[in-house]
Amino acid sequence: MSSTRDIDALIDMMARLPGLGPRSARRAVLHLIRKRALLLSPLAKLMQTVADTARECATCGNIGTTEICDICTNAKRANGQICVVEDVADLWAMERGQAFKGRYHVLGGTLSALDQVGPEVLRIPALLARVDSEAITEVILALNATVEGQTTAHYIADQLDGRVTLTSLAQGVPIGGELDYLDDGTISAALSARKRL
Amino acid sequence: MSSTRDIDALIDMMARLPGLGPRSARRAVLHLIRKRALLLSPLAKLMQTVADTARECATCGNIGTTEICDICTNAKRANGQICVVEDVADLWAMERGQAFKGRYHVLGGTLSALDQVGPEVLRIPALLARVDSEAITEVILALNATVEGQTTAHYIADQLDGRVTLTSLAQGVPIGGELDYLDDGTISAALSARKRL
Ligand SMILES: [Zn+2]
Ligand SMILES: [Zn+2]
Repeated sequence: MSSTRDIDALIDMMARLPGLGPRSARRAVLHLIRKRALLLSPLAKLMQTVADTARECATCGNIGTTEICDICTNAKRANGQICVVEDVADLWAMERGQAFKGRYHVLGGTLSALDQVGPEVLRIPALLARVDSEAITEVILALNATVEGQTTAHYIADQLDGRVTLTSLAQGVPIGGELDYLDDGTISAALSARKRL
Repeated sequence: MSSTRDIDALIDMMARLPGLGPRSARRAVLHLIRKRALLLSPLAKLMQTVADTARECATCGNIGTTEICDICTNAKRANGQICVVEDVADLWAMERGQAFKGRYHVLGGTLSALDQVGPEVLRIPALLARVDSEAITEVILALNATVEGQTTAHYIADQLDGRVTLTSLAQGVPIGGELDYLDDGTISAALSARKRL
């Protein structure tokens, strides 16, 4: 048995993370091993803590460590607006923009007949329920400017037609672009120039 | 206290790893949290194991989990050759090339008057001792083709002059290039075309 078995396994696991590859995984692991007391051990403990405590908010689907996330429990953010996003990464991107003061609803993907992703998989029934229970007046459909994102936006718009003001992010979102790739200023601009559907 | 404090801290730690940045750290952490049972928890445990067991080989400076590494304990690799490298990453790069059958000596850096890195910091006395105790006939100086790497190579060559055959990696190592960035085939070619100093 090789004495580097665990180290090799660690490099393999790191290399499979999005954004990393074999080379950056090797460099990261060597760096961590060199600073194992100061860096690797604390990182391991923090990962275990997050693994044990991270959960999806039961209301909006955001990721946190409590049953209901900070945004959903913050009374100041009950302003009658819900911003619907595909993914938690998009919610985080919106929050970095610091322009949106309402609450979110994370779909967790887009509608796809091919992949058998229907409305119930995407928390769309829960969104419709929130519109009533939280006295929502505006639903901002901040879905990615992809075919799937826009199909999903249209489906939700149909369901909510006449019940709330429906808006979508307007200028600044490039065709085919994904929210999580945009700079914070672009997201702010797109939000303030949002247009009624 | 934010319910995402630990998640934010995890993203910050990951973002500071070489090769990552804020965006790839966020993507990696979201990916890990989504697969927290399957991926994040095992990764945390593996990191802790490596943090607890990783150590430098007392002979050559390679990283493993035993006092003496697999290469230094493998009798087949006592072929009279020692390959001197700056860094464990370079040793790993040489091993991926699968061309070198001898043993290694990891300096852990290069000589630098400015940074007060002298020969003793770089395990150079230990290298000189190994040349005698392990009946070494050839020392391959596989240091990076940087000014510091070549200064260090010359210093070692001076110390060993007349005691062993001194060689260096020849063709294939680009000027200013670093071993760890080279493809495996280039390293093989450079090794087999090594030239006597
Ligand atoms: Zn929430
Ligand atoms: Zn060794």
